[in-house]
Order: sequence, then structure tokens, then C-alpha cells
Amino acid sequence: MNPALLETVNRAIGAELPRASYRYTARDAALYALGIGAPADPLDQDELKFVYELSSRGFQVFPTFAVIFTRSLNRLFMSGEVAGIRYNPMMLVHGEQHLEILQSLPAAATVNSTLKIADIHDKGSGMLLLIDGKSCAENGEGLARTRWSVFIRGLGGYGGGRGSSVRFDTPDRPPDIIHEEKTLPTQALLYRLAGDSNPLHADPEMAAIGKYQRPILHGLCTYGFAARAILKHFGDNQAARLRSLSARFSQHVFPGETLITQIWREAPGALRFRTIAKERGAIVLSQARATLRE
Amino acid sequence: MNPALLETVNRAIGAELPRASYRYTARDAALYALGIGAPADPLDQDELKFVYELSSRGFQVFPTFAVIFTRSLNRLFMSGEVAGIRYNPMMLVHGEQHLEILQSLPAAATVNSTLKIADIHDKGSGMLLLIDGKSCAENGEGLARTRWSVFIRGLGGYGGGRGSSVRFDTPDRPPDIIHEEKTLPTQALLYRLAGDSNPLHADPEMAAIGKYQRPILHGLCTYGFAARAILKHFGDNQAARLRSLSARFSQHVFPGETLITQIWREAPGALRFRTIAKERGAIVLSQARATLRE
Repeated sequence: MNPALLETVNRAIGAELPRASYRYTARDAALYALGIGAPADPLDQDELKFVYELSSRGFQVFPTFAVIFTRSLNRLFMSGEVAGIRYNPMMLVHGEQHLEILQSLPAAATVNSTLKIADIHDKGSGMLLLIDGKSCAENGEGLARTRWSVFIRGLGGYGGGRGSSVRFDTPDRPPDIIHEEKTLPTQALLYRLAGDSNPLHADPEMAAIGKYQRPILHGLCTYGFAARAILKHFGDNQAARLRSLSARFSQHVFPGETLITQIWREAPGALRFRTIAKERGAIVLSQARATLRE
Repeated sequence: MNPALLETVNRAIGAELPRASYRYTARDAALYALGIGAPADPLDQDELKFVYELSSRGFQVFPTFAVIFTRSLNRLFMSGEVAGIRYNPMMLVHGEQHLEILQSLPAAATVNSTLKIADIHDKGSGMLLLIDGKSCAENGEGLARTRWSVFIRGLGGYGGGRGSSVRFDTPDRPPDIIHEEKTLPTQALLYRLAGDSNPLHADPEMAAIGKYQRPILHGLCTYGFAARAILKHFGDNQAARLRSLSARFSQHVFPGETLITQIWREAPGALRFRTIAKERGAIVLSQARATLRE
């Protein structure tokens, strides 16, 4: 129990966070797509269109690029204070990411996002912050909704509500699709130029402080690899087909490892999946699901 | 003989071309360095400092990034007209690149470059244009000098001067260093985001028009790989050590091929080298030399 922290938490729930503004061009979207491993085959026009602005198939922004619109949160998280709640930034981990695509992303745009703390749960071993974002084009049209869940280790047990949690386990049958793809040893160095420049993903010395043998891949990079597998096998590689994607970052990935994504079709347009780092047999994305537009 | 073309050529020699302005940040320099294959080992701080802006070794801009300052020439070349000389852009090939580094490149800068046609040679089978550039920081200090040599096939025999040519063949002894490195299948797709967005390097359909089986790597990307080999073995991976680098683009490279760079030390700080695409045994950089600051 920690009444002072409980009071801070109760004030923080519902609080608005600083708005995010993000301006991008096709080059940024292409860099993001390269960062998440597209194209698996550079001669395959299906994925080439995500990195090549003059593609004869028509350039498309890969849909999970929308998580980048609220990437300024990474900097806020690293500051060690969110809505009056103070913590050691090294104890914060990205827990889950939910994304809902409202419409196809333009090839270039200035995107404004509002962000607020939707809820805060006391999980005993730590505190779970749920942050909701809505990202809109300059004309006000909604492009995407995001929910970032971040977990602050050691900050639980203050007497707050535990929150409910719905589980999205994988079905008890073999997956319908198994997609395997190797990441590059430089994958995190590439992804960070589009995504999140946290030194944990580049600097061997900072990784050691975080108790990792070497820099780890961004969870959202793995998330992008899984999204590509889903869009390839269930969405004909059409950006417009992805409606939503959610996953828990259950373990880290080291750049260079092979990602195996197992996908189950639950209903038309509704998928469950998980992603495994093949070399260590570690489940790296769990509680994961996606929906598609038919 | 083509007196009208000869007259156009004589007027063009010495002509100034449109000035180039290029603004970059550490992110652009990092993207360029990833584009030329750095770091070979993401845990090696020696090359990590070219892609990671917070490196404990101090961020350094890889020196051949200076060729990017005059990359607007690529667009001029593709237009099919340079200083009144008209040609089919598909017949133009990048022949040679000379680069001289005047001082270490800042982590971010706005660079202004003046460009002029230094000379034009009638090589019989085509026309060789030599274009000199000088790139300066905003305070006017010189950063680099470049000489682009471009060859326009089929436009020779107009009655112009042949020009002289000094040869820089490799010595008749085994190389002092042999450096081998594999390019990525996506290397050209990555390099083009920092360098030159010519569709020849991305688009299978455009490559076919150019009579290539598939998109080819940028000559300047191969040039960057060779520069990394030189800086590693003879310059302690210190950006400030490279003084000059010159090479002829004698054959194309396909992304994914392995580059073997053979280097001979001729005198203190003076090197000859050549680069071979291992899988085809093709000499891809020839007449190549570098100088280093001791």
C-alpha cells in the first residue's frame, strides 16, 4: 500500500498527454517497411510496392507504419515521469500494442495524435499503464487508433485496482499458416531510423546495463514482421486489408534471429497468431490477434 | 563528324551547372552508412559509430557520404540534356567517381555545391563528360571536391578531342589485403533512400528495359563498400583518415552478390585497389586508388 502513489495514479487516469505531431513522406514509409523486413524478395512486386514509390502496382504505405505516429511516447517513457508518476526508465517495458487502422494511410502526410491515459492497473509486481491515441490527418479524418500498454516493474502493490484481462490464447490445434523469416543482424539499426532511437536497440553498453547480452530488436519491429506475414497470407499483400493488430511483447528478440509466425484463422477476417524466435524457441509475441477487411 | 554537336560541346566545356544544395542530419548520414553495408558487425563499435549518433566512440559521418552532396546531378543526367547536349538518358552510364575530402564532415549541415563541366572527350564510341564539384559548408569552408565522369554511349565520333587518360592499373603482385563482404539482396533498395532513386536500382521492369536481368546496385554503393574496406584496413576506421578515393565503374553488381576488394599499398598513404563481384568473377571497380592522411 502506498496512499500517495495511489492518489497520484487516480489523478493520472484520464489525463491527456502531450499531443504528437508527425510529418512523413514516402521515403519515411519506405524506410519503415525496410525496417520491418520488406521486401522478403526484392523482385517481388507484392512487397516492393511498400518500399518503392514508383511501383507499377502503386505505392502503398505498410499499415502498421501508423504506430510511428505516436512514437513521441517513447521519449516521454524514457523521461521517467508520466502524468506525475515517477519511475526508473530502465524498469519500463513495452507490454502490448494494439492498433486499429481507420483508413488507408496516405503516401505523405502530417499526422496529429491525441493521447490520454485510459487506465492504470496495479499488477502487484508492477504498474500497467494503458495509453490510448487517436491519429488524424490534417483534414481531421481519423487514420488510426493505438493503445500502448507499458509495464513499470517494481511499481505495483500500491493499493490500486488490478483491472481485468481478457485472454487471447492460441487454439489447441496446429496453425493454419507457419511463416518463417530471418531478421538481419543490422535490423534494429535500420528500424531505429524510422521508429524508436532508444539506445537499448543499438548500443552494446546500454544493452548490458539493461541485462541483455547484446542490443535487442524493437518489439514493434517484430510486430511489423508478424503483420507482414499476416498481410501476405491472409490479405493478398494489400495494405487496405488490415483492420487491427494486437500483440503482447512476451520476450525479447535479438537482431539476426529467425522469426516464426504461426497463424490460426478463427472466423472470416479474424486471426490469432504468435511469433517465436526460432533459435531460442522463445515465444516473443503472444496474446496476439488480427482482423482483416474482407 | 558532326559540326553542330562539336559546336554545342565546345560551348558546354567550362559551363556552370545548377548549384546543388543538400541539407542533412545524423540520421541521413547513418542511413547512407547502412546503405553501404556498415556495420559489418553490429556489436563492433568501430563501425557502429557511423550509424549510431550516441556512440561512445563519438559519431562520425562516413567520409564517402560527401558524394551525396552533389546527387542532384543524377536527376540532371536523367533529364536527357546537360548544357545543351541532348541524349537518350538510357545511354548514359556513370563512368568514374573521384572524391577528395577537404575536412571531416559535420554530423549535420547544409552543404552548397558548385558544379561545372571541366571537360568533354570524344571517345569514338561515346562522349565522356567530366563534371567537377566543390561542396562547402554554410560558413563557406570547403568540405569536399568531386569529379563525376559520365559516359554517353553512341554520342561519340563528332570530331572532338579524345582527351588523355592516365592509367591506374593494379600492381603485378598479390594484393596486401583482400576484404570480402556480402551485400544484402535489399542493398539497392536501402542505398537508394540515401543516395540515388533511379528506378534502375529498384524496378525489375525498368532494369529489363536497361537490358539487365534484374535491378543493379548503385556504382556508388559498391564504391562505399570499397571505401569501408580501405578505411578498416588502412585507416583504423577513422573517418578523418580518408583523403581521396577514385574508381571506374567497369561492370555492374547485382544486390546480394559478394564483393571482394583487393588492396595494394603503393607508398605510405597511397593505395591501389579493385573490387570483384565474387559470384561472377567480374571486376566491378577498376583503375581505383585512394590516399590516406597519416
